[in-house]
Amino acid sequence: MPKYVYDFTEGNKDLKDLLGGKGANLAEMTNLGLPVPPGFTITSEACRGYLREGGLPDGLAEEVETHLEALEKGMGKRLGAAEDPLLVSVRSGAKYSMPGMMETVLNIGLNDESVQGLAAQAGDERFAWDSYRRLIQMFGKTVLGLEGELFEAAIDDVKRRKGVVSDLDLDAADFRGLVDTYKGIVREQTGGDFPSDPREQMRQAVQAVFDSWNAPRAIIYRRQERIPDDLGTAVNIVAMVFGNLGMESGTGVAFTRDPGSGQQGVYGDYLQNAQGEDVVAGIRNTVPLQRLGEIDPESYRRLLEIMKTLEDHYRDLCDIEFTIERGKLWMLQTRVGKRTAAAAFRIATQLVDQGLIDLDEAVGRVSGDQLAQLMFPRFDAGAGRPLIAKGMNASPGAAVGRAVFSTERAKELAAEGEDVILVRRETTPDDLAGMIAARGVLTSRGGKTSHAAVVARGMGKTCVCGAEELEVDAKGRRFTAPGGVTVEEGDVISIDGATGEVFLGEVPVVASPVVEYFEGTRTGKGTDRERDELVQAVDRLMRHADERRRMAVRANADTPEDAARARRFGAQGIGLCRTEHMFLGDRRKLVEDLILAESPEERRAALDALEPLQKSDFVGIFEAMDGLPVTIRLIDPPLHEFLPDLTALSVKLALAGDDATPRDRRLLGAVKRLHEQNPMLGLRGVRLGLVIPGLFTMQVRAIAEAVAERRAAGGDPRAEIMIPLVSAVQELEGVRDDAEKILAETGVEALIGTMIEVPRAALTAGQIAEAARFFSFGTNDLTQMTWGFSRDDVEAAFFSRYLDLGIFGVSPFETIDRSGVGRLMRLAVEEGRASRPDIKLGICGEHGGDPESVHFCHEIGLDYVSCSPFRVPVARLEAGRAALAGGESETR
Amino acid sequence: MPKYVYDFTEGNKDLKDLLGGKGANLAEMTNLGLPVPPGFTITSEACRGYLREGGLPDGLAEEVETHLEALEKGMGKRLGAAEDPLLVSVRSGAKYSMPGMMETVLNIGLNDESVQGLAAQAGDERFAWDSYRRLIQMFGKTVLGLEGELFEAAIDDVKRRKGVVSDLDLDAADFRGLVDTYKGIVREQTGGDFPSDPREQMRQAVQAVFDSWNAPRAIIYRRQERIPDDLGTAVNIVAMVFGNLGMESGTGVAFTRDPGSGQQGVYGDYLQNAQGEDVVAGIRNTVPLQRLGEIDPESYRRLLEIMKTLEDHYRDLCDIEFTIERGKLWMLQTRVGKRTAAAAFRIATQLVDQGLIDLDEAVGRVSGDQLAQLMFPRFDAGAGRPLIAKGMNASPGAAVGRAVFSTERAKELAAEGEDVILVRRETTPDDLAGMIAARGVLTSRGGKTSHAAVVARGMGKTCVCGAEELEVDAKGRRFTAPGGVTVEEGDVISIDGATGEVFLGEVPVVASPVVEYFEGTRTGKGTDRERDELVQAVDRLMRHADERRRMAVRANADTPEDAARARRFGAQGIGLCRTEHMFLGDRRKLVEDLILAESPEERRAALDALEPLQKSDFVGIFEAMDGLPVTIRLIDPPLHEFLPDLTALSVKLALAGDDATPRDRRLLGAVKRLHEQNPMLGLRGVRLGLVIPGLFTMQVRAIAEAVAERRAAGGDPRAEIMIPLVSAVQELEGVRDDAEKILAETGVEALIGTMIEVPRAALTAGQIAEAARFFSFGTNDLTQMTWGFSRDDVEAAFFSRYLDLGIFGVSPFETIDRSGVGRLMRLAVEEGRASRPDIKLGICGEHGGDPESVHFCHEIGLDYVSCSPFRVPVARLEAGRAALAGGESETR
Repeated sequence: MPKYVYDFTEGNKDLKDLLGGKGANLAEMTNLGLPVPPGFTITSEACRGYLREGGLPDGLAEEVETHLEALEKGMGKRLGAAEDPLLVSVRSGAKYSMPGMMETVLNIGLNDESVQGLAAQAGDERFAWDSYRRLIQMFGKTVLGLEGELFEAAIDDVKRRKGVVSDLDLDAADFRGLVDTYKGIVREQTGGDFPSDPREQMRQAVQAVFDSWNAPRAIIYRRQERIPDDLGTAVNIVAMVFGNLGMESGTGVAFTRDPGSGQQGVYGDYLQNAQGEDVVAGIRNTVPLQRLGEIDPESYRRLLEIMKTLEDHYRDLCDIEFTIERGKLWMLQTRVGKRTAAAAFRIATQLVDQGLIDLDEAVGRVSGDQLAQLMFPRFDAGAGRPLIAKGMNASPGAAVGRAVFSTERAKELAAEGEDVILVRRETTPDDLAGMIAARGVLTSRGGKTSHAAVVARGMGKTCVCGAEELEVDAKGRRFTAPGGVTVEEGDVISIDGATGEVFLGEVPVVASPVVEYFEGTRTGKGTDRERDELVQAVDRLMRHADERRRMAVRANADTPEDAARARRFGAQGIGLCRTEHMFLGDRRKLVEDLILAESPEERRAALDALEPLQKSDFVGIFEAMDGLPVTIRLIDPPLHEFLPDLTALSVKLALAGDDATPRDRRLLGAVKRLHEQNPMLGLRGVRLGLVIPGLFTMQVRAIAEAVAERRAAGGDPRAEIMIPLVSAVQELEGVRDDAEKILAETGVEALIGTMIEVPRAALTAGQIAEAARFFSFGTNDLTQMTWGFSRDDVEAAFFSRYLDLGIFGVSPFETIDRSGVGRLMRLAVEEGRASRPDIKLGICGEHGGDPESVHFCHEIGLDYVSCSPFRVPVARLEAGRAALAGGESETR
Repeated sequence: MPKYVYDFTEGNKDLKDLLGGKGANLAEMTNLGLPVPPGFTITSEACRGYLREGGLPDGLAEEVETHLEALEKGMGKRLGAAEDPLLVSVRSGAKYSMPGMMETVLNIGLNDESVQGLAAQAGDERFAWDSYRRLIQMFGKTVLGLEGELFEAAIDDVKRRKGVVSDLDLDAADFRGLVDTYKGIVREQTGGDFPSDPREQMRQAVQAVFDSWNAPRAIIYRRQERIPDDLGTAVNIVAMVFGNLGMESGTGVAFTRDPGSGQQGVYGDYLQNAQGEDVVAGIRNTVPLQRLGEIDPESYRRLLEIMKTLEDHYRDLCDIEFTIERGKLWMLQTRVGKRTAAAAFRIATQLVDQGLIDLDEAVGRVSGDQLAQLMFPRFDAGAGRPLIAKGMNASPGAAVGRAVFSTERAKELAAEGEDVILVRRETTPDDLAGMIAARGVLTSRGGKTSHAAVVARGMGKTCVCGAEELEVDAKGRRFTAPGGVTVEEGDVISIDGATGEVFLGEVPVVASPVVEYFEGTRTGKGTDRERDELVQAVDRLMRHADERRRMAVRANADTPEDAARARRFGAQGIGLCRTEHMFLGDRRKLVEDLILAESPEERRAALDALEPLQKSDFVGIFEAMDGLPVTIRLIDPPLHEFLPDLTALSVKLALAGDDATPRDRRLLGAVKRLHEQNPMLGLRGVRLGLVIPGLFTMQVRAIAEAVAERRAAGGDPRAEIMIPLVSAVQELEGVRDDAEKILAETGVEALIGTMIEVPRAALTAGQIAEAARFFSFGTNDLTQMTWGFSRDDVEAAFFSRYLDLGIFGVSPFETIDRSGVGRLMRLAVEEGRASRPDIKLGICGEHGGDPESVHFCHEIGLDYVSCSPFRVPVARLEAGRAALAGGESETR
């Protein structure tokens, strides 16, 4: 039989799987000799047994009893004894904290007898009856599942009758009366009595914690966060200590350094004569932690000492909950504390300087997501514009524009060159065009998986959602904010996607110092200490990550300008240079000619006109990436993308009637001929190359001549030619043979490889590798085809619903879906390498800049990731972290 | 060192891999004691070595020499000796016969000296010089690669100068002169002399056969037929015998029974004083083989004896090539002969009756393709309409209609209710609409992989292509046929897709007796012996296949009528009942209401109106399939498919201007909202069920109530509910939970399962099986997504090009692509079964009726295949054959 219960003296911080985060850290502190109230932890294994068997596992009750007796013995008190009773709290504590689960029941052990003992022992009758009614209230809500409202109403009733507004104005008799009322509520609602047996109270509370593991909100949360369903939760039984036993008592939270900036010092809040729940309720104002030095110098000194001990021990910023009971300091909880992105970088390097951690560990302490946050422009905090609301930080960035309330208006104003913010109660797929036209999106409803949030993140557009204080009146084209603020259509507002803040008027935007650093326009030696330290920290950790990473990082860039920027951001080449933009703009006419060509000669003439233009594009890119590899993808999209829209052109011709121009008529013919039901699955990529004679060879010749020209000019151009949308090796062979002929003719060398973006390419990678010198995973298309949905169509239509239902934890377009797409990738890597051991393997889908996906790419052994220039630093950092994590991925 | 050369006495018929088909059968006949000219075979292994090393493998030359010397010794002659020379033929013979490869060089061993010896020995100078010039001509063409035209021109020249038209009118001197001319041609074209050394002639000929393995046409043929590239070919060296040594000599072909009808008897042709190539050239008319009984009774008697021996030995119809040299009969080749579909069935059962084979083997002797051919209606052979041309039998069926020459005209006439045949030189994607409108397609250009052929087969439309005698004048709207026949637009023609025949006028169509048998309207006891025997044979073999097969066969059927027909054809249930047609017709309005619903109440009302209609559909189907499983797929296609076309509606509204109706305006709004870039990858299948509340549950309720109604009426309805387009188990779980609730409410039992039609579903089949009682592979969608092309878009646009390039041997929509789609299926079967051992596995894509795909399904262990009612007999037969083949597939 497994051991189901651990005394705090038996556990340690590394047993989170078994004891949960809270229990493991309580044990750790106990072993460090810190003043933790005695107690024990029931393991998550016991929970798993309970959930599996539908009842407490054999032997658990006995083991709990043994530990409880030991606790009673140690405390010299008995649980719920009539005189001087021992009281305990029951607290859930899973490995990962999880909203929706039962959290805590305090004051277990009180009943009509022991409440007297507590009163006597504390010398405070009011305190004792208040504690008792709190127990019934908490127990009723969380264990018995009653509406909290019922209890709130009863207490309000008492206050109203008494003519007071604060709980502080209620006396012992009032609380005693409330205890009776509460018992009545329990009886009425459940048909049974509130259990007076202390051990029964505890048993029910423990079981309620176990049951809450499967509360619907907890299940959905786990799905969304991809926390396995079978972990279970631990339960902590802790002797009660009271911060509400008078002015010499109190409760507080502390941080071992500033979680906002990373600054060293003492940060926290303290509230005299209170319990933790009072702090949360916000009835009274807390004081800064430093004031504790005046209120209780001895406890303060001891607290600082403990904070130092914990930080040295955990070698990281810790946050702490503590209670002082009549001058005696107790530690109720500690954990490694959350912090802002800037603080994370600064703290990591500070800890290195303090000798607590080495640079390897420091790199592990910061994340690509944090770095990305630091790269967004921010609003100038000192600008002093009025903050009118706060919603959820759904998609980062800082956006300023005129408020508009409909998609139509967003498009109109945007077309006039205005910046607009689309404001809606919530968005629907109908708002898609408006979201595209807007600089940012603000909604008053919905959370981080709402339609607005999901779509905005997909677009990389700033979004604040669920700003519930706002009343949006779309018909009236206005919204109102608290304090009588009304914003009419056309009024300028500013929204901060990183903080969820909404400001009236235009807030000046401040460039990111981290971006300035990458751009080379800022060093760590300026006049603003905080910024300088941040830049120094980023510099140091990036260099170290670069040193450690195994994977190269390239950029997706189509122009010399993007290529140059990517290089400044640390890109080691171009992993994806799309050639289709080279067919747009002024050249559209030539492409139309190509499509309208009715003879081989006409087609040839159109291609001949395009070739020198293509060549000059490539020359510029090779120049910007001199000495580094440039992977050029031959044209991929279906040709009709270069022609007018079928519906628009049909309407135009219908309205023009006999006056329609011959060219328009011919164009309509071509558009109809090339029209496809599903262009994503149509005539594109390598299929174009095989079906339209001369198209790919024109591109290859342009590349070869650009290489020759750069080489003649003393440059070091390194071209790689990439064939898109291959699904069978035979397709690739044909195109490769033609390309090799041209390369041989021009005396130019270039690797020829292929995208792996069609499931069949991955499934037959062993064969395809025989004809490909490199693979580049096109995970956008691969995700679309593996899941069978197109990003354009379904992301707006139902991703938010899928996230709500927990079908995805995160959109598979954001992070590689390991079980589906990832499985195909792993298979292609293994079989591709088996067939050609020196094959070069990379990724050029947008996942190449996503932290978790970068780890996955490292795990499966890719040689490089390629992403947008702006994400290059993120990919560098995460590639370093992945290498340091030793092949194991950090999924949270 | 391997043995590279086998004397005919050393081989046997089972060594086809090594000796090729021809060599193995020559050896077999030799060992049977039949009169085969002596000779030996160089193995395909030698060819592989040659191709690998770029030269003859070590030891081969010596081994050939040894065998040649033995041959010389046995014959008492020396190769190319000046007096009484031994001559040999060099013939290629791969495992599978293959167009594009070098076939034969006769008369090897002749030169300026040995020609005299041959003349003396044969007593026929003309014969000797004719043989010599034939050698140079064949050698020049096939070994040296010269244009045959050059030699033809020279012989024509002689005839013109001499004023004769037939080769028979040339004498010894003429041929002697031609030998000189031919030698001159060789010298001029190659810069070298025709080799006079007999052994050098033989060496070069052998090498030329080896080289021809990699002739471009052979490579493409192998790709198309999926013959491995590394088999290589064997080469046969055979002592020459001459059928052209006077009227006591001759050559012929024989069949051991009629390959057209399967009738027992003697069938064949004979030509006196001729060699095989003369028969092919068709200069003189052959006589029926029976006449040989008068010409040379002894040889005829011996031939019949041999035919009996061969048929008993091979236990099958054999075809035979033989030569008689001055009264002595020689067997030059035999093989199991090709036959028509009807003959195949009749012969197989005849052989059973003769005790030569058992029923198991007989089932293996017929194929689903043959059965399918027998199920098409045919033209009445006795109708006597003029045959005006013959093209390729590109897509079977018999079509009658008015000739049209453009897509526009095809659509117009079809819209008026006329049957039309689209006639084009060749079709392009622009002709697609015309092909859809037509009953059949006729082209004068292109082969079986031409656009017309591929698309017509995909549509199941009758097609004759490459009828090269026709001159198609599309502008003049007419075509001309040989013999001055002109067909104008509107004239009626008839085309037979099974034979490639084109008739003028309307040919009466005769129903298939095999279909009548399946329908139960014909037995094998009629008045037409041939038909009766065919029906008896089909009946017997189908019964046996049914007895032997492991897989069940179901049908895809959406209506009670289809279900009833499928049942008559032997279906054991419905594998796919689509529910979307139930949303069409009169019900379109209700579906529009559903889509236009602006409130939950409106939506509910629309669903409530649909439910009883759905229910009554199901009742009818359960009745037709009483006692058998019916798998009902919940609605799959995107909703906008039930709305008008975006472009058409936009044009309509633009033209209507202010007069547009409000309903049209609302419809346009809905069409725009639901418009998708890639509907195949859009909001459909399970996604609809999750996003539109009540849609799936309405369908499940209709099913449950239909089951209850049928049961109350004493029926035995067996419903299976199938969820389409699942890509993650979470999707399925949600829908399944809702469905199970409804089933529980109505007290009805039904299996709930899913389609596996998205690659990710296959990749995560282990998980999905936890929520699915059955899998049904939707291989149409699975093929689209695995290859990344939509059937609608790409089949017409480039499949013919892909087939020409050999990228496919056959469209992956026709036969399951084993390496890609098949790999996913195999994986899903293994992991699905591992996770739920009793899971039911089937297929309901169109591949379920394709013979090779049925074998694949058997191999990977599916429980059933489901296909269109008409293909059910094909699937039954092939499932039986697959079981008899013991899990190994017959790929050709």
